[in-house]
Amino acid sequence: MGVEEKDIDHLPKNAANYTAFTPLGFLARAALVHPSRTSIIHGSDHYTWLQTYRRCRRLASALIKRSVTFGSTVAVIAPNVPAMYEAHFGVPMAGAVLNAVNIRLNAETVAFLLGHSEAAVVMVDQEFFSLAEEALKILSDKSKGNFRPPLLIVIADKTCDSKSLQHALSKGAVEYERILETGDPNFAWKPPQDEWHSIALGYTSGTTASPKGVVLHHRGAYLMALSNALVWGMKEGAVYLWTLPMFHCNGWCFTWALAAMCGTSVCLRQAIYSAIANLGVTHFCAAPVVLNTIVNARKEETILPLPRIVHVMTAGAAPPPSVLSAMSKRGFRVTHTYGLSETYGPSTICVWKPEWDLLPPENQARLNARQGLQYIALEGLDVVDTKSMTPVTADGTTMGEIVFRGNAVMKGYLKNPKANQEAFANGYFHSGDLAVKHPDGYIEIKDRSKDIIISGGENISSLEVENMLYQHPAILEVSVVARPDEQWGESPCAFVTLKGDLEKSDQKSFAEDIMKFSRSKMPAYWVPKSVVFGPLPKTATGKMQNHLLRAKATELGSVKKSRI
Amino acid sequence: MGVEEKDIDHLPKNAANYTAFTPLGFLARAALVHPSRTSIIHGSDHYTWLQTYRRCRRLASALIKRSVTFGSTVAVIAPNVPAMYEAHFGVPMAGAVLNAVNIRLNAETVAFLLGHSEAAVVMVDQEFFSLAEEALKILSDKSKGNFRPPLLIVIADKTCDSKSLQHALSKGAVEYERILETGDPNFAWKPPQDEWHSIALGYTSGTTASPKGVVLHHRGAYLMALSNALVWGMKEGAVYLWTLPMFHCNGWCFTWALAAMCGTSVCLRQAIYSAIANLGVTHFCAAPVVLNTIVNARKEETILPLPRIVHVMTAGAAPPPSVLSAMSKRGFRVTHTYGLSETYGPSTICVWKPEWDLLPPENQARLNARQGLQYIALEGLDVVDTKSMTPVTADGTTMGEIVFRGNAVMKGYLKNPKANQEAFANGYFHSGDLAVKHPDGYIEIKDRSKDIIISGGENISSLEVENMLYQHPAILEVSVVARPDEQWGESPCAFVTLKGDLEKSDQKSFAEDIMKFSRSKMPAYWVPKSVVFGPLPKTATGKMQNHLLRAKATELGSVKKSRI
Repeated sequence: MGVEEKDIDHLPKNAANYTAFTPLGFLARAALVHPSRTSIIHGSDHYTWLQTYRRCRRLASALIKRSVTFGSTVAVIAPNVPAMYEAHFGVPMAGAVLNAVNIRLNAETVAFLLGHSEAAVVMVDQEFFSLAEEALKILSDKSKGNFRPPLLIVIADKTCDSKSLQHALSKGAVEYERILETGDPNFAWKPPQDEWHSIALGYTSGTTASPKGVVLHHRGAYLMALSNALVWGMKEGAVYLWTLPMFHCNGWCFTWALAAMCGTSVCLRQAIYSAIANLGVTHFCAAPVVLNTIVNARKEETILPLPRIVHVMTAGAAPPPSVLSAMSKRGFRVTHTYGLSETYGPSTICVWKPEWDLLPPENQARLNARQGLQYIALEGLDVVDTKSMTPVTADGTTMGEIVFRGNAVMKGYLKNPKANQEAFANGYFHSGDLAVKHPDGYIEIKDRSKDIIISGGENISSLEVENMLYQHPAILEVSVVARPDEQWGESPCAFVTLKGDLEKSDQKSFAEDIMKFSRSKMPAYWVPKSVVFGPLPKTATGKMQNHLLRAKATELGSVKKSRI
Repeated sequence: MGVEEKDIDHLPKNAANYTAFTPLGFLARAALVHPSRTSIIHGSDHYTWLQTYRRCRRLASALIKRSVTFGSTVAVIAPNVPAMYEAHFGVPMAGAVLNAVNIRLNAETVAFLLGHSEAAVVMVDQEFFSLAEEALKILSDKSKGNFRPPLLIVIADKTCDSKSLQHALSKGAVEYERILETGDPNFAWKPPQDEWHSIALGYTSGTTASPKGVVLHHRGAYLMALSNALVWGMKEGAVYLWTLPMFHCNGWCFTWALAAMCGTSVCLRQAIYSAIANLGVTHFCAAPVVLNTIVNARKEETILPLPRIVHVMTAGAAPPPSVLSAMSKRGFRVTHTYGLSETYGPSTICVWKPEWDLLPPENQARLNARQGLQYIALEGLDVVDTKSMTPVTADGTTMGEIVFRGNAVMKGYLKNPKANQEAFANGYFHSGDLAVKHPDGYIEIKDRSKDIIISGGENISSLEVENMLYQHPAILEVSVVARPDEQWGESPCAFVTLKGDLEKSDQKSFAEDIMKFSRSKMPAYWVPKSVVFGPLPKTATGKMQNHLLRAKATELGSVKKSRI
């Protein structure tokens, strides 16, 4: 009997029982369920869900009037302001694709992005107008007369100097609020015809030559919004502080999750502790470096004990166990996740086991520092030998590559068939991250494949060296990379920021102290042979820019053969 | 520009980034995330998630070995026992469709169901074996030699008399645990090729002559599992008491939601209060009649104050405000929902507004007794004038029909094109329920257009009862309506005109005769508890004026709780 012959399967889709999944419907529902609840707080501006829904429909309708059409790209260059949140709904309601651009990129890179994505509209915060202007000039110069300038919209910000706004307007940009006025607040938006249609495009910060454009679809965004709320136990009406930039992978899809949960977005740029105290914050996401700042805050900046449990989702570099443990002592409940732009943000979660409650804090932190188990949105996660695609033994030591499959994996990279072929080889998405699998099934990243230091033929995980160094009382931040080594090929080089000030004259003795400390904690070949002090370069999202440090380490030249 | 021409939409699905949505994956994940957490408690039997996953895979594998194939129907006639839970995963893992049968139906109806669904397998709890046996006999007799008997599996229950088990085995039934032994605990099940494939079939108790088979798909079941957990704020590790039968719309999809949340199913048939005290119950679903029992429990049966907040989801007939208020005083948090088998269970939720906290309990209860707003799984809910499909004014008085659209609406009725056409007319699913919409958008049911009687949480079709009563030789005319019932919420009340004259003195014996006749024809809970003689009110065109009879039945007052 054929697969389709059964009566019981012969019931077609119709308008009543099938709709494309899209997170846009969450906004309509939020406006229905909690019309007067606060959707967004930004300084003295407060919006309700009904207002936000009307503003987003205005935006969609206005964009369509300005010739935005199905599949157009709308780029937004802005920090966490209400307009950025609204673009997450208004742009796809117009059938267009949102490209949220990292505000810390340089004009060259922004020019590349706007050209590659063929942005029809550029919405830019007044503070970043000159960046957009410069990028568009580069693009125009390169195109040799072939350039069709995008519609330029400037987002005014009361807290900024009015000069940049005046400048933008003089350059022909239209003010965002004026654009909204031309739109219909009751615009009858429609869900996409196909849930596979693109909703957002985000560029990887690019460790390779050109950034890659990660394309996400409505189905995945819908799923991730629900999954985020579920795995985090986020209840209706949560108050979420935007420390994580929305331009970073659409705020790990929490932009849409907050509409699903009718929660409140706090966009105010104030210190975390005071937002917790004054605005009822219950949740925020942050890179480990932010956690570091929180635990190292001076006593007078903190508000402890916390007035309520505050849930923190962290991802990025693995948070050092010492930081996790310090967060926990302060009353933060840290959920450790791991993911990539290519997986809509979080794709693993370090599920807290009730039996861990009984362990000493150090052990808890060590267990929670692992990347964990697959997110509910995924159907497959494994650590495999990349060549044979066979899973590694779950012994906590055998390394392999993390691979994913499921509905929360990107559509693909824009205009990059070669990258797509590599990324999707053998039916899995290849993360490029190296990990082990523990006997309890939890995975733990040992390094990005490029962060592995190979010394005398032995792999050294720079991450593990870093975790040990974080136990040193004077170290605020550390990153360990490979440095060429005459004798061993490569050896670990530690870039360190100390907690206090450091006189140049003290550097040598501090370096020796750190090496001594290292020798007491780790195998001899792991001990950094070089220690360099100074501030560490980071991306907009707080990720350490190890490629710059690697370049620096290379510049230092090879470590000479020691006499020992 | 054509809709599909944009580069940004030209990224095809592949094995890494697309999987059919199915709730089956939740079980695999639960076994991975919490392998040793308790999945099911049934008397002294405790299972872990790893065991449940292995048992479900055994079941799938064993069914396939017994020729169950894609689209086969597997009927299960059982109360809330572990095998019933396992069937929710094991049956669809084999590609088959689960038909969970109401155990209170009579053999005639069960025969109709098994014939209509073409059940290839019948799994039956030993207590209900004779029901299945009788139904199969009826089916066989009717088919005149054309009958291919299904595989008969009997589920043993230690708490039952062993005679029924022995009888079943003597009749050729295979014991469930023996079947499992033939299956592979590591069976490599696959998600369905298409998420639109059917996962379950459930029969409405039928407002027309024959019950209708509601077909549900993997996509909807997946969505509802997540939605249930989200709207109810159900956290990972919730402990759920099965008061609601799993055969009732797959337990409103909580069967699958519990796997998603790695929660625990308590199947033990013990009093609700003692399950809360002894087993850590945090959640249960119940018809309003159960809430009635809870608030009217004698003091020595209760455990108050409750050791923790217990969340109760209720649906069915609207719970009386007095009951809601009494529940709240006892520390239960009642979430009021409304739905149909056709909408996978709950499709509206009476979202609690924070500002209600300040109201007097009676006002709170009155607000919470409304059916509310659309579930997160739906894209559309409205109250419309059925002819014009225009929404009614949200004034709390204008009545219209409740209509739905979205991914949590059934595929359709099995082998019933006429019913499908009616149900899906004009792009909406028609509930047949009449409601008003309040100015705050909340809907409230005012009447059931199909004269449903809800007794102990189960729907009874007055039409069907009438059809059976019409078979009584002395009955000329009969109309059956709901009468308030102390114990069951509502029970059927029959208004009867007899063929001959009837002396007042004979009424009592006639009433008894009618009840006796009914007991031979229909499930016990369908049997009218009250019989009233006299002429029936009709319109000029001869239509029965049921609203007058309902008023009369209400005047009679509640049926008292029986002494049995």
